[in-house]
Amino acid sequence: MRVLITGAAGMIGRKLTERIARDGGLGGRQVAELHLHDIVPPHAPDIPGATVSAMTGDLADENAADWLIAPRPDVIFHLAGVVSGEAEADFEKGYRVNLDGTRALFEAIRQAGEGYCPRVVFTSSIAVFGAPFPEIIPDEFHPTPLTSYGTQKLVGEALLADYSRRGFFDGVGIRLPTICVRPGKPNKAASSFFSGIIREPLAGLEAVLPVPRSVLHTHASPRSAVGFLVHAASLDGDSIGPRRNLTMPGVAVTVGEQIEALERVAGNNVVRLIREEPDETVWSIVRNWPTRFSAERARALGFVAEEKFDQIIRAHIEDEMA
Amino acid sequence: MRVLITGAAGMIGRKLTERIARDGGLGGRQVAELHLHDIVPPHAPDIPGATVSAMTGDLADENAADWLIAPRPDVIFHLAGVVSGEAEADFEKGYRVNLDGTRALFEAIRQAGEGYCPRVVFTSSIAVFGAPFPEIIPDEFHPTPLTSYGTQKLVGEALLADYSRRGFFDGVGIRLPTICVRPGKPNKAASSFFSGIIREPLAGLEAVLPVPRSVLHTHASPRSAVGFLVHAASLDGDSIGPRRNLTMPGVAVTVGEQIEALERVAGNNVVRLIREEPDETVWSIVRNWPTRFSAERARALGFVAEEKFDQIIRAHIEDEMA
Repeated sequence: MRVLITGAAGMIGRKLTERIARDGGLGGRQVAELHLHDIVPPHAPDIPGATVSAMTGDLADENAADWLIAPRPDVIFHLAGVVSGEAEADFEKGYRVNLDGTRALFEAIRQAGEGYCPRVVFTSSIAVFGAPFPEIIPDEFHPTPLTSYGTQKLVGEALLADYSRRGFFDGVGIRLPTICVRPGKPNKAASSFFSGIIREPLAGLEAVLPVPRSVLHTHASPRSAVGFLVHAASLDGDSIGPRRNLTMPGVAVTVGEQIEALERVAGNNVVRLIREEPDETVWSIVRNWPTRFSAERARALGFVAEEKFDQIIRAHIEDEMA
Repeated sequence: MRVLITGAAGMIGRKLTERIARDGGLGGRQVAELHLHDIVPPHAPDIPGATVSAMTGDLADENAADWLIAPRPDVIFHLAGVVSGEAEADFEKGYRVNLDGTRALFEAIRQAGEGYCPRVVFTSSIAVFGAPFPEIIPDEFHPTPLTSYGTQKLVGEALLADYSRRGFFDGVGIRLPTICVRPGKPNKAASSFFSGIIREPLAGLEAVLPVPRSVLHTHASPRSAVGFLVHAASLDGDSIGPRRNLTMPGVAVTVGEQIEALERVAGNNVVRLIREEPDETVWSIVRNWPTRFSAERARALGFVAEEKFDQIIRAHIEDEMA
């Protein structure tokens, strides 16, 4: 089978590439071609018996999408996008990359014609939701994004569902919860501390906690995120039905429970590296984020995340620190 | 004040134009300029003391939107669009007019800059919803359109909310229920009979009822639809909050109750002109349509529809048959 990954140089893209390389395939089918695309050069691993290509460019450029789907990939993972903070800071860039880029890809597939109908897996986000929320957000809750990023993801979801209904491709949109523990360094995202308070102490570094321990949030590990993508690639489209966008499961915990899990996994000496330093600005943002999801449809369709935050920490230790 | 109406030659556009001409203003403010735009020439009425212009063109054409907002209208009613059946039959035209045209208008407003921030009233539709539904659709129910038209309206709603949040304009999206009684002739829309079984018998003509009398549906008169638009034009934006798209109220009745109302208003001789002729194709479409809405937010914000179907029939008699 032929596979295309857009945004292949990003954190999830890299891990998905590694997973496909390790498995040598996807959903039990061998990969013959793996095409990797991003705005910066993605790393192309060796896969015995498969052709792996790495391409660089802007998906929203004219003809870029036509060129990308020229090999007629059977599965397209559309991960490319400008992140939340950048889409908010640069309105035009966010719409160009996240909306126009996505639409260009979808249009290129539609216009390919000749019965071409790939599986398209689109990474959406819980940023499609905006406060106020019920205690548990049901699958039928309306998306009312409070960021341009969330708006662009919502538009992508709507197009995905319509293009799938029309039979132009067979799409699955997966709304990722916050990915934790993110490897790498702290960044300026308001959500950075959710990973930082685990990752930094495990590495022997101090971490700042800017919000109260009562803050509740839903997390899934990078390993689970890749699992969602791989599962979505081989789901039966008919079993999904016309509602093609699914809120993924995750572990809903308070920050206090995150820290308790860290203590269980790594001990009190590690936890002592967390310094509480309230930051009203960060809290005012985080306060409006969704807390807990039912994710019933995704679970029924076989999407699996961690059950406990301890497992998320252990996945980080195994995958990043081994 | 300066007012722009796109789609001014359509049924609602014409009635809104008439209403503004009759009132000489909008929300108690006198109209100094009324600009009417459509793909076919709209009728420009005389309004004493006001400049009225009629313009013809395609909103999605390059620079068309810039030209439209050159007079810097204070209120923009964006009614233009390809209807449901046409958007389904012609995929590219539907996206071009309903999505690209709407986005072009929104972008022209954003790029005008210099503090320009008009009220934009956008007519969305209950077509943003797709079956299955709960018995009463709450304001928080997720939109999962089952037509390209509904998808395009949903994208328009999402953009409207984001452009409003960003302060580029002050938008209100109103989701219209089925407009009944539509004046004019029967058409090929699956919903045509909802108006036909009232309009045709009142005119002494036979009408066909293709669905069971138990079919439940929500209606508002053209007069109410114009009332929604006029009310939306002068609502306080802060009172709406960030959820800018509102499901409008209406009268939820079964087809049987529609017919009983017709008998009360016009007598048994009129009702006898309705001929039941089941059409499985029409029913298979109508069966998936939403039935009843709570519309609590719209009611709380002062949007008013008829309370009983009898009033909808009387509005038709007064407005169309007097």
